[in-house]
Amino acid sequence: MLNFTYYIPTVIHFGCGQVSHLTELTQSGKKVLMVYGGGSIKRSGLYDRAIAILKSAGLEVFELGGVEPNPKIQSVYAGVEICKANNIDMVLAVGGGSSIDCAKVIAAGALYDGDAWDLVTNGSLIKGALPIYTVLTLAATGSEMDAGAVISNDAIFEKIVTHSPFMLPKMSIMDPEYTFTVSPRQTSAGTADMMSHTLENYFTDVPGAVIQARLAEAILKTCIENGPKALANPKDYDARANLMWAGSLAINGLIKLGAPIPWNVHPIEHELSVFYGATHGEGLAILTPPWMKLVLEKDPSKAAAFATYARNVWGVVEDDDDVAAKIAIDKTAEFFFETMKMPANLRAIGVEDKSKFEIMAEKASKNVAGGGFVQLYKEDIIHLFDLAF
Amino acid sequence: MLNFTYYIPTVIHFGCGQVSHLTELTQSGKKVLMVYGGGSIKRSGLYDRAIAILKSAGLEVFELGGVEPNPKIQSVYAGVEICKANNIDMVLAVGGGSSIDCAKVIAAGALYDGDAWDLVTNGSLIKGALPIYTVLTLAATGSEMDAGAVISNDAIFEKIVTHSPFMLPKMSIMDPEYTFTVSPRQTSAGTADMMSHTLENYFTDVPGAVIQARLAEAILKTCIENGPKALANPKDYDARANLMWAGSLAINGLIKLGAPIPWNVHPIEHELSVFYGATHGEGLAILTPPWMKLVLEKDPSKAAAFATYARNVWGVVEDDDDVAAKIAIDKTAEFFFETMKMPANLRAIGVEDKSKFEIMAEKASKNVAGGGFVQLYKEDIIHLFDLAF
Repeated sequence: MLNFTYYIPTVIHFGCGQVSHLTELTQSGKKVLMVYGGGSIKRSGLYDRAIAILKSAGLEVFELGGVEPNPKIQSVYAGVEICKANNIDMVLAVGGGSSIDCAKVIAAGALYDGDAWDLVTNGSLIKGALPIYTVLTLAATGSEMDAGAVISNDAIFEKIVTHSPFMLPKMSIMDPEYTFTVSPRQTSAGTADMMSHTLENYFTDVPGAVIQARLAEAILKTCIENGPKALANPKDYDARANLMWAGSLAINGLIKLGAPIPWNVHPIEHELSVFYGATHGEGLAILTPPWMKLVLEKDPSKAAAFATYARNVWGVVEDDDDVAAKIAIDKTAEFFFETMKMPANLRAIGVEDKSKFEIMAEKASKNVAGGGFVQLYKEDIIHLFDLAF
Repeated sequence: MLNFTYYIPTVIHFGCGQVSHLTELTQSGKKVLMVYGGGSIKRSGLYDRAIAILKSAGLEVFELGGVEPNPKIQSVYAGVEICKANNIDMVLAVGGGSSIDCAKVIAAGALYDGDAWDLVTNGSLIKGALPIYTVLTLAATGSEMDAGAVISNDAIFEKIVTHSPFMLPKMSIMDPEYTFTVSPRQTSAGTADMMSHTLENYFTDVPGAVIQARLAEAILKTCIENGPKALANPKDYDARANLMWAGSLAINGLIKLGAPIPWNVHPIEHELSVFYGATHGEGLAILTPPWMKLVLEKDPSKAAAFATYARNVWGVVEDDDDVAAKIAIDKTAEFFFETMKMPANLRAIGVEDKSKFEIMAEKASKNVAGGGFVQLYKEDIIHLFDLAF
């Protein structure tokens, strides 16, 4: 196990009715910028509820609505401008990972003199941020309890992850009831996203990181049990609650610290989002089983790791590692594409031909250069896209 | 799943060499009271190292050594007196749970005008505490990352748990190498302690708390895998690291929040410590398998929960719940008493007769009055002692 520092000072208020804690934003000042996406929080009534609580607490509310999935740098610019023009004291995201990620970089950009895109390409430039609060409405990215944000810049075909401890939310409100109206498609995509976060860290070569592996298995089993329940009954409170908390724990450091590893599937999927506007979780699901096959092709000794995954997560009773590994890959695909009814290949999400595989692989290869469980090169990534086609 | 608030602002510096972070105590002032137990930190060189780092950082160090296992209120009084007489700014515990628990109540007592025993019997009286820092040398109680402390008062035969958010350590240094010299007996007792913390929460009737259960299983499996490795090779870094981090996660809220339950075995064991000076972890190990049998006797429907424990923790392949439950209890006993070589019954820790069963059960029954997985009454607890005799 490697050395690590664990420090997660975010206050999580989890459960129904916890939105009442929005009154505590008065700790951070008077003026709040509320950042949100499309109209879903207006349809659900959450928008009205949040505004009413904030105003009753004496807060002055500014708004930035319409933040898109795969939030764009233009939305960040718009938010930063509001903050600077109005001396905003804090930023509140109400929504899923896109709104939260956008709010995080707005909060950092508000205290930065240059172009906020700098903060996306180089998180170490972030030397401070306005206090960040969130009300989560989608179990997926875990952004409500981590220090990262993903921002896209369509002009230059980039979708980049940035990190800074200053972007860790001060408080996040997680009410599973707010996810009752999440569509089946987004429920599946969110489940795949958090499972991918877990799998990226689970397959590690760091020796001796046992507890991290067992905790990762716990999160995966929680997703596998509760994802289908949420699909079958969108108002199943406990299923939604387990998914919601799993999403936070999948990426807040619990399973990474002591066993960090460069991620592979995420940076490759980002190219699908950039070039095809793929829904992140769907892209991840499509790439994950073929990534497992590719890893085994390149390094058959990794069968042992996949066999452990088979036995501990899927309950496979099989002594032969090679056989168990293949069963695990099949079960992963079956879960995503049959149980969770997700698109099973690139064609199903609108990738009509292989014309962009090379440019996507070229770009992705720079982001997986750090290695990971098995180092992938440009040719490997083209092969992965082929397998996923 | 129940509503909860998750907030653990303790900074954990985990791994070899992390003691260098002691320089950061300067954030809290100039004068530090260092609290420790017997001579083990002097023999290991940690005492000299810590003092050197603190002094090089310009801190003035006061000392309270000799804190006993099952720390007594007299040690708390002594520490509080030093704090008040010298305007101490912060308290640093270097040791295991006993030193840390003692340091916590000293830190609270330093800001309290009355008798510090009041703070033990009523944690809500704690309205503040000096900043608390710890260097952990024993994987067991998890006190380095929680807000509780257990203090004994021999004069009135009491051993009581107190809680206050003010007693959560500000920073804890966890270097697995400091546990290389922990004796086999204490290694086993510590492993049993953290497993008991986990089991107390794992067997819950709170519906829908799936992720908490899976995480508890992860911690239990980590203990079961690494406890024997640490016994076989006391300098196995990874085994010690996994046990150390498991001890923190077993009690920091991760497996409790959303699924809280009154504990049963701990308050019963406390009577063994009070009346017989039992080593806490040994008492817990002795009581746990008969507690499981007692629960099944009182409520056979609980076999389903023990069967899940059998399958998910012990890998038992058995469809019949009643059979699986019994296998799990046997495996638990085998692990504690054979694999970890712990004393298997009350006679083995010096309980020569049953004369105190009634008074111990009478006292314990007041502390298990909150219910728990299965409500135990005085007669049940006497029966439990009989089973454990």
